[in-house]
Amino acid sequence: MGPAAKTITLKGRFQMHRAGCIESPTMAYETWGELNAARDNAILIFTGLSPSAHAASSAEDPSFGWWEDMIGPGLPLDSDHFHIICVNSLGSCFGSTGPASVNPETGDLYRLTFPVLTLEDVAEAAYGVIRQLGIEQLHSVIGCSMGGMSGLAFCVRHPGATRNFISISSATRATPFSIAVRSLQREMIRSDPRWRNGNYDLSAPPITGQRMARKLGMITYRSAEEWVQRFGRQRTTAAEENDSDPFKIAFSVEAYLDNHADKFCGSFDANCYLYLSRASDLFDLAEHGGSLQSGFQRIQLDRALVIGVVTDTLFPLPQQRELAEGLKAGCQEVQLVELDCISGHDSFLVDMDTFRPVICEFFDSDDESPHKDP
Amino acid sequence: MGPAAKTITLKGRFQMHRAGCIESPTMAYETWGELNAARDNAILIFTGLSPSAHAASSAEDPSFGWWEDMIGPGLPLDSDHFHIICVNSLGSCFGSTGPASVNPETGDLYRLTFPVLTLEDVAEAAYGVIRQLGIEQLHSVIGCSMGGMSGLAFCVRHPGATRNFISISSATRATPFSIAVRSLQREMIRSDPRWRNGNYDLSAPPITGQRMARKLGMITYRSAEEWVQRFGRQRTTAAEENDSDPFKIAFSVEAYLDNHADKFCGSFDANCYLYLSRASDLFDLAEHGGSLQSGFQRIQLDRALVIGVVTDTLFPLPQQRELAEGLKAGCQEVQLVELDCISGHDSFLVDMDTFRPVICEFFDSDDESPHKDP
Repeated sequence: MGPAAKTITLKGRFQMHRAGCIESPTMAYETWGELNAARDNAILIFTGLSPSAHAASSAEDPSFGWWEDMIGPGLPLDSDHFHIICVNSLGSCFGSTGPASVNPETGDLYRLTFPVLTLEDVAEAAYGVIRQLGIEQLHSVIGCSMGGMSGLAFCVRHPGATRNFISISSATRATPFSIAVRSLQREMIRSDPRWRNGNYDLSAPPITGQRMARKLGMITYRSAEEWVQRFGRQRTTAAEENDSDPFKIAFSVEAYLDNHADKFCGSFDANCYLYLSRASDLFDLAEHGGSLQSGFQRIQLDRALVIGVVTDTLFPLPQQRELAEGLKAGCQEVQLVELDCISGHDSFLVDMDTFRPVICEFFDSDDESPHKDP
Repeated sequence: MGPAAKTITLKGRFQMHRAGCIESPTMAYETWGELNAARDNAILIFTGLSPSAHAASSAEDPSFGWWEDMIGPGLPLDSDHFHIICVNSLGSCFGSTGPASVNPETGDLYRLTFPVLTLEDVAEAAYGVIRQLGIEQLHSVIGCSMGGMSGLAFCVRHPGATRNFISISSATRATPFSIAVRSLQREMIRSDPRWRNGNYDLSAPPITGQRMARKLGMITYRSAEEWVQRFGRQRTTAAEENDSDPFKIAFSVEAYLDNHADKFCGSFDANCYLYLSRASDLFDLAEHGGSLQSGFQRIQLDRALVIGVVTDTLFPLPQQRELAEGLKAGCQEVQLVELDCISGHDSFLVDMDTFRPVICEFFDSDDESPHKDP
């Protein structure tokens, strides 16, 4: 994942939600399809913790994006009808300002001097982007995983700034299980001697801790049921074995995790990961007004779609039901869809054949669906 | 947990299941109640990965054991009627020979020169103990978690050596999810620079890796549902906070894991943990004869009880059903009990009020139940 094709600078001091400011942050984003004359066909995508803004290929960047089969002509996020915008979250490392960026006030990398990051900040920075793009009201906000919580933060802070909201495998706030998992992932990175309290040599990052954190991620992103079908007790080939190591990789599932750790760790900055991980723990819709109910009452939407997956352990079905029920407070029409996918939390990245029709149906059934300018 | 009260030496070369031998291993064990004249009232307990043989208090050691509320006069494992034996697994570090023991042939600690450990070895060493105690046939074998697999290994290798078998939250073999979790736990320890390829300074063991491995253990031993009820999004008190650390412990669930890591890590030897963890991955009943079916056919029992818990993610209910169904091949009466406990895999250590009646009932309904000598 490289930096996204376009950037916008949010001029001036950007006030962070908890405390502190950052000076004129840059936001990276990509777009697909054209903004119509009425400026009412824009869809904003908030990503999960790790993706860049490169959700799909484009003329500027023909490489496959992380949601390639969802965005494009004739696809659910139809670039023939919609102007689709995906932002790289504030705090991330794919073009947007974050702990891996240079602090213009000091000339040094922010690292741990970056202020506490919240998903309210992620939402606010994205709001700044769409305002600079001249969009008053979005057709829809879509958020996956952490991005669903960023989307909720957007909706609660800017009622009316989007007509519709789609939450995919997300929640009003993290469960203690998810907090425990992320806390341990952060501990793995922070325990790596190369982390050096955030001051790692950029050519020698805390890759050992990052690899383990990614493996724990994969263990919680997929499902035990999927792995029974996919791996069972299959062994690795003898060629991969090293007889002098009594704890060498022996099972296919171990090799699978190792491969995923290899793929991920080259690209993601360790401090950015820590900040975004913590932000995911901290978000709580109930902080907006003192209760979930008051948080929900601040959200004004035409329609909302809440999608959950039966095998998701990070954002389990009871959380989807709570979210759908709560959104009814300020939303005219709320639809809850519980999908019987086997790939766990990651199903929205994997099981496209099941997700596409659900999202298609949501847009097709919109009475005020915008059309391409003639 | 200190060393158990009694030890037995298994004289001569102990042939390991995979390869290699160890010289005259010591086995630590504890007992409760008296062996009757007919020598038919003995119950053997195989523990999970981490406990010692100190399952309950006794005159010799009045400290509370790990199954204190299960063993004793009038309790399900009734020491007024039964002679109960709990062994510390071969390969562990609470009195039995393992990687933390001195190799009598070299005078050095075994460390990673200890041969590959399997649960067949754990079973065989326990079999050696009961034979030295003069017991031909056990009334029952009980195994919890890893101990259930050790118990299966005992039953498949010594048909008729026990009349009855109770498996608690165990399985015929580990799922790929459980293998993935344990593989990552081992990686945490092995990645700790203090591990030094197993040659750690005994006064400076790889406690950082061990602590993280224990935390991941707790995340998989308990259940997400329990933590929602118990912790929700409760914060730690301000006194525990340290404002200079942006990733300090903030949520009660994080503090809970930290406390558990503190309690565990002083006591368990890192290399022993690695060996027992790997042994748990390696066990597969299907290796006895080439298929699960053939493995089950080698087991001869009067009665079996298979207990599983609905919230257990390490040994989930489908595995309990598979085990109960399979045992019917060589067992006259198999009972499957699925418990609706909220504490996950650890329920057998926590939810005594639910487990006690089930185990009581199993022994009470035994037509050939032994009685205390008059």
